[in-house]
Amino acid sequence: MTIFTGLSAFPITPADAEGRVDADALSRLLERLCAAGVDSIGLLGSTGGYAYLSREERGRAVSAAAEAVAGRVPLIAGVGALRTDTAMALAREAEKAGADGLLLAPMSYTPLTDEEVHEHFRAVAAATSLPLCIYNNPGTTHFRFGLPLLQRLADLPGVEGVKMPLPAGTALAEDLAALRAGLPEGFAVGYSGDWGCTEALLAGADAWFSVAGGLWPGPTLELARAAQAGDRDGTARIEAAFMPLWELFKEFGSLRVVHAAANLMDLTQARPPRPILPLTGADLDRVAAALARVEAVA
Amino acid sequence: MTIFTGLSAFPITPADAEGRVDADALSRLLERLCAAGVDSIGLLGSTGGYAYLSREERGRAVSAAAEAVAGRVPLIAGVGALRTDTAMALAREAEKAGADGLLLAPMSYTPLTDEEVHEHFRAVAAATSLPLCIYNNPGTTHFRFGLPLLQRLADLPGVEGVKMPLPAGTALAEDLAALRAGLPEGFAVGYSGDWGCTEALLAGADAWFSVAGGLWPGPTLELARAAQAGDRDGTARIEAAFMPLWELFKEFGSLRVVHAAANLMDLTQARPPRPILPLTGADLDRVAAALARVEAVA
Repeated sequence: MTIFTGLSAFPITPADAEGRVDADALSRLLERLCAAGVDSIGLLGSTGGYAYLSREERGRAVSAAAEAVAGRVPLIAGVGALRTDTAMALAREAEKAGADGLLLAPMSYTPLTDEEVHEHFRAVAAATSLPLCIYNNPGTTHFRFGLPLLQRLADLPGVEGVKMPLPAGTALAEDLAALRAGLPEGFAVGYSGDWGCTEALLAGADAWFSVAGGLWPGPTLELARAAQAGDRDGTARIEAAFMPLWELFKEFGSLRVVHAAANLMDLTQARPPRPILPLTGADLDRVAAALARVEAVA
Repeated sequence: MTIFTGLSAFPITPADAEGRVDADALSRLLERLCAAGVDSIGLLGSTGGYAYLSREERGRAVSAAAEAVAGRVPLIAGVGALRTDTAMALAREAEKAGADGLLLAPMSYTPLTDEEVHEHFRAVAAATSLPLCIYNNPGTTHFRFGLPLLQRLADLPGVEGVKMPLPAGTALAEDLAALRAGLPEGFAVGYSGDWGCTEALLAGADAWFSVAGGLWPGPTLELARAAQAGDRDGTARIEAAFMPLWELFKEFGSLRVVHAAANLMDLTQARPPRPILPLTGADLDRVAAALARVEAVA
């Protein structure tokens, strides 16, 4: 059974203006996730700002996280990088630091071909003995996976799942059915894009890779369990409290919103990596209102 | 008079599999550019693989280039980075190493807002006394500049020009006229995308930021001078020899093609930064044929 199933919670990685990770604040965030009992932790995902942190700081974050989590919840570490050799080194360092699995996005500058992405994944998957999840996020990587490439990647040793974006112009159930039909039995198919993920779980997806879960693990877990149980009415009732948050995620990007929320909740004093600017003024007031709604679920 | 005018030649940055710059091979490439008399050198542009090199190696490349060029041609250094503080440090280091100007692309992972890009450019432009050219390349950065933002950036001290992509769905002369009408007198407007750049020069653009110019400076300069003189027939006659090369640039991306060509010409033994794969087999034969056509111009 792969670790890439259930509610995977993606916290921010609190850091200062120079990109130095605040290990204490990170540990506080992770303690909340372990206490709530999420199914896995997605450290150094897009929300975790992996693309903006040095290799050294990423290593420090994994070490601090492994110590804080202490085996209570599987720890998945993002190891994406523009260079293949860097991604391989990050994978080795994450394994050594105590990660239980890897998440790999095909970061790009020069647009990549399918063959290049295949070779990149092959090399990184072979660099450690950890299971690897394909991170399909065209909104940030600008690479689009077709099913034929996913099939080739799913055949690589160690590649056990995929984190899909919400489909555009296709119903989620249809998107999932096409993936299931094309991918091996037991290969985990999960989704990210919090506002569409209860629909994904209701349709039978294996995982919800959740930004909200990284900051509000209790309410998000309640929502995920209702959806996993197929309780459409219960899901809708709980999700009503998340709607203002989903709107903010869509409007500002979840990274900006959860940084603001974590500070409002006095859990961190973090700012997003510059050039990304913190939310202020009326936008911040909307975050405060949305988080009050979510916290009322618990 | 700004340095961001005329034929700006963008060489590759020869490097080994680990991303260590081959300073000797780089110097050989730059000597050809100086001997041919290009109007400027665009070091560490997209073709120069800046996004894939460490800060240290980028510093080494600028130092080696400044030594090789020895003041004969203005040296423009790409200082793009995902983090603002990194881009500022790169700008300072490029100035110290002897660059005459900076080229800044808004690299992105999390999609950036206009305000974020403005603040990023403001900070980097203020970090040194060097003139700065805006690098507008949505194909790699995935950020789209509108005219209002370009206008705000053109007002920043030190920002003297823009490197535009070829317009999609608009005639080049129309695109240029709209920019001229909206931007300050004396602000340099140039284009990249070699296959459309003679049209840009014929329409009166200030600069052609050229990949071909980085490897075949003589023929490219001949082509640029014909276009700058408004000699449409002469331009077409010379450009016929470049057509197979333009086709390869569009099909494979210029980075892959010029790496292959520089090796075929025995100027380098470089490979593109992995995950980018070198061209092989029949593709390489087509590069050999295309470069023979271009070399016959001289």
